[in-house]
Amino acid sequence: MPPTVRQAEALVEPKEDLMSLDGSAGRPMDMLAARLADDMARVNALIRERMASEHAPRIPEVTAHLIEAGGKRLRPLLTLAAARLCGYEGEHHIRLAATVEFIHTATLLHDDVVDESKQRRGRPTANLLWDNQSSVLVGDYLFARSFGLMVETGSLRVLDILARASATIAEGEVLQLSAARNISATEDIYMTVIRGKTAALFAAACEVGGVVAGADEARAAGEGDLERAQAVLARHGTLESTRATALAWAERARTALEPLPAHPLKEILAGLSAYVVARIN
Amino acid sequence: MPPTVRQAEALVEPKEDLMSLDGSAGRPMDMLAARLADDMARVNALIRERMASEHAPRIPEVTAHLIEAGGKRLRPLLTLAAARLCGYEGEHHIRLAATVEFIHTATLLHDDVVDESKQRRGRPTANLLWDNQSSVLVGDYLFARSFGLMVETGSLRVLDILARASATIAEGEVLQLSAARNISATEDIYMTVIRGKTAALFAAACEVGGVVAGADEARAAGEGDLERAQAVLARHGTLESTRATALAWAERARTALEPLPAHPLKEILAGLSAYVVARIN
Repeated sequence: MPPTVRQAEALVEPKEDLMSLDGSAGRPMDMLAARLADDMARVNALIRERMASEHAPRIPEVTAHLIEAGGKRLRPLLTLAAARLCGYEGEHHIRLAATVEFIHTATLLHDDVVDESKQRRGRPTANLLWDNQSSVLVGDYLFARSFGLMVETGSLRVLDILARASATIAEGEVLQLSAARNISATEDIYMTVIRGKTAALFAAACEVGGVVAGADEARAAGEGDLERAQAVLARHGTLESTRATALAWAERARTALEPLPAHPLKEILAGLSAYVVARIN
Repeated sequence: MPPTVRQAEALVEPKEDLMSLDGSAGRPMDMLAARLADDMARVNALIRERMASEHAPRIPEVTAHLIEAGGKRLRPLLTLAAARLCGYEGEHHIRLAATVEFIHTATLLHDDVVDESKQRRGRPTANLLWDNQSSVLVGDYLFARSFGLMVETGSLRVLDILARASATIAEGEVLQLSAARNISATEDIYMTVIRGKTAALFAAACEVGGVVAGADEARAAGEGDLERAQAVLARHGTLESTRATALAWAERARTALEPLPAHPLKEILAGLSAYVVARIN
């Protein structure tokens, strides 16, 4: 069946976006932000509304300091993109994107206490400007509020996915605490740590977007490929292996997009997966 | 309608329990623990199962240090009691009691970091034995696991109640941070702090027990009485007022039990509400 005009347009459109006014290629995350600007404005409004506290003004102060420092908002953008890509026309993806950003912000607040960090996003950290106590407790507040937002979507599946991701994040952090002082830590341990610290929330951010849109479960990327990829990589040297691992994960991300219908966001997301590993090419 | 033999027995039985072998009065929390011992053994088994971590053995170590120091387990006992008192015969109250204990344990871990505590339940604190990092992150893990347990009950209402309670707990703690250094903090601020630090989880622990048992919503104690009680108390001196406030809350707790059917647990719980304020009589 030949593509409809709409589909053909969708396939072409992002290529135009790739050229900015000065002729240079646009970064995929900027294209994603531009295309989802309306949704993201609503996410930001919801974030400001829900970070408020009736009794403790320090909560929105600490949260605003970090959230308004202007992170890339890549995780909530992925939630919005996944929902839209699966044809979602409702309201819950806004709540889920805010949820994901709250969980991310809570982990950053706690991370900065754990790592005794002094700077984040070009600003002094909250633990430096206020104190460790505020960072721990405001993080707890945001985590609790994120579950409240999830409840509003009415989806137990979403709650299950993000509760598991949150446990995996904390588990990865605890593992890193002991692994950091252990020079015999294996690559397996390293992979478990970064799966918790980075991959778990990215994966969940995408998954819940699809779930809220009622996407077919079978479309999700299968598990178990990691072991296969690792077996292949065992025959390589360390640098090549690291590079290949990153490329293989990017390829898995692109493969996961394949069964989805043609959509401008599909090509942007594929571009994003290539972009984030481009530095190691 | 005259009471059935079963009801009459139920009304008499706790009075016998009040006398221990040496003739002294038993503490209501011990009676509660004795009557719910089978349920509580299952809660403890579930807690041990779910505090495990596939990758980070420090998580169960830190958790066991605190949980096995032998707190009174009053919050999970209240969840079990509320569910049984409302005639519940299912399995979910076990999960909810474990949930409540996990949330409580997570807040204790974070509290001890915030307060730089050295001792808890007669043992050195986790932040002293391990470090602040472990306490923060293991707390996060338990909080995430608690939401996973709630998801298993399939009740969005339960998730809503405990997400709100968790936010109120964190809000009370943040408010205390600023209020502690503010000598002009009012009684209203103090009440908000202790509502967060203590009342929120106790109230939620009872409420979710009733909710999981499908208890009638109208049976729950009405809101808004606080303002009325406070207006009355404004005419009294501080000590009398404090005593009267505590007694009024205990009386509200007993009043909340009234509409429930006759049950041995009902009298034990009424005794408990009197017991916890007996020290100020």
